[in-house]
Amino acid sequence: MGDGFGFSDRVVVADRERAQYLGFAERVVSRAGIETLPFFRTDLEVEDKRSGGVFDPVTAADRACELVIREAIRAEFPDHGIYGEEYGYEPGCGLTWVIDPIDGTRAFMSGMLHWGVLLGLFDGQDTIVGAMGQPFVGELFSGDGRHARYQRGETKFDLRTSSCASVHDAVFGTTGLEWFGEGELGSVERLIEQVRLSRVGGDCYIHAMLAMGSMDISSDANLQCYDIQALIPIVRGAGGVVTTFHGENPCLGGTVLCAANGPLHELALDIVRA
Amino acid sequence: MGDGFGFSDRVVVADRERAQYLGFAERVVSRAGIETLPFFRTDLEVEDKRSGGVFDPVTAADRACELVIREAIRAEFPDHGIYGEEYGYEPGCGLTWVIDPIDGTRAFMSGMLHWGVLLGLFDGQDTIVGAMGQPFVGELFSGDGRHARYQRGETKFDLRTSSCASVHDAVFGTTGLEWFGEGELGSVERLIEQVRLSRVGGDCYIHAMLAMGSMDISSDANLQCYDIQALIPIVRGAGGVVTTFHGENPCLGGTVLCAANGPLHELALDIVRA
Repeated sequence: MGDGFGFSDRVVVADRERAQYLGFAERVVSRAGIETLPFFRTDLEVEDKRSGGVFDPVTAADRACELVIREAIRAEFPDHGIYGEEYGYEPGCGLTWVIDPIDGTRAFMSGMLHWGVLLGLFDGQDTIVGAMGQPFVGELFSGDGRHARYQRGETKFDLRTSSCASVHDAVFGTTGLEWFGEGELGSVERLIEQVRLSRVGGDCYIHAMLAMGSMDISSDANLQCYDIQALIPIVRGAGGVVTTFHGENPCLGGTVLCAANGPLHELALDIVRA
Repeated sequence: MGDGFGFSDRVVVADRERAQYLGFAERVVSRAGIETLPFFRTDLEVEDKRSGGVFDPVTAADRACELVIREAIRAEFPDHGIYGEEYGYEPGCGLTWVIDPIDGTRAFMSGMLHWGVLLGLFDGQDTIVGAMGQPFVGELFSGDGRHARYQRGETKFDLRTSSCASVHDAVFGTTGLEWFGEGELGSVERLIEQVRLSRVGGDCYIHAMLAMGSMDISSDANLQCYDIQALIPIVRGAGGVVTTFHGENPCLGGTVLCAANGPLHELALDIVRA
């Protein structure tokens, strides 16, 4: 899956289009998220996508959700590309919608709450809009790299990252240390030794909490592009910084490092690079 | 704190009183939970309860919530004892309400969702009714050891554990391996090696998901009595079994092992004792 998806020339998008894409992402994530709920906290048919290796469940919910998003994109933006976790890559005009129908599938399977529906729009170099929905809780996080907002029922506000200025004062989150490769594990462990509080588990929800201002540094390893794309314009729109562990463009995944602001990101990057 | 709280002669409670206590627990947990919300996802003044050692935050939310529960108990059942995480033990007539105002304080601090307000009623030997509220999500789990139920808005249903019959098919949850002592860590690691899927993180929410039927085995170490009491009649009421790692009464905390049913509990207990 995903053959040929990668960096390419940037498609220039006008502000008015960007706003239109953001509104679309918010609407379709909210709508598609509802498709997952009949499968939540019920018996699921789980198959194992990989033969051997790490357990990676695919659920009917995943597929139902991605199909709704794909249909909406084809109806509204027929010339755009689509890259989804479940159904692979369909190239388009240079703008590509990147879908993770349920990020945090194992949380979903076990009835827990830290999972989300992710949709981002990639311009060849960056994700320019993104939305994350938690349909059971009724939450929607979204952003365009300049602004980010939170909606839950009547509650609506702009997301702002924290002003945390020191790694020693920071709350750190990661989905799990088992995802970090041998060369990276020491780096993230150095970070964990220095922060005030570290939390393990949470998938996309961790990075959403960074955008919320409730966490200060987050990192996840071994990410696919669809695990992180939607979150990038949310984190950046809230004031945060997100790169790879090497300080590079995080849009294709790998190991990413998010921080609430630029100075904190530099401090954290110095620690992981040390 | 908690000096003198422990096992004593069982106070016999009639069915009608038990139902009254359960209804009270549900109402007061729902009401007190609302007290926590102004402190959720806002800047918190966090102090460190212990000098050195494991980070254990106390928040204003914790105290506000426990005070509301204590006042309600004193008003309704003035002769009952109270034992709470924040304000200690006040002995009473032999029945004792056991409070954890926010179980999962670190999740709460970082904006995550896996935390809850816990209230149980201890008869000297067992917790006879219990309630767990997640006020942000609007959920209430409750039970009396015979039945257990879930309420969220208009959604109400009885909780039923899974019929999972094999450790190899089980979904396992624990708050964190770092809480297990040296002699227990090998035991829980043996369990994790054998289950289908294991999840780390979640505090009370893990055991609620066992009652929900979404997890099959759960274990937590180093628990205080208030961390587990409220959950015991919920897990048992849903059909589950909960004991210590040694198969004994879990009401005073320590290291507990929950399973969805009796046969699965025996299989899991054999593994941790091996």
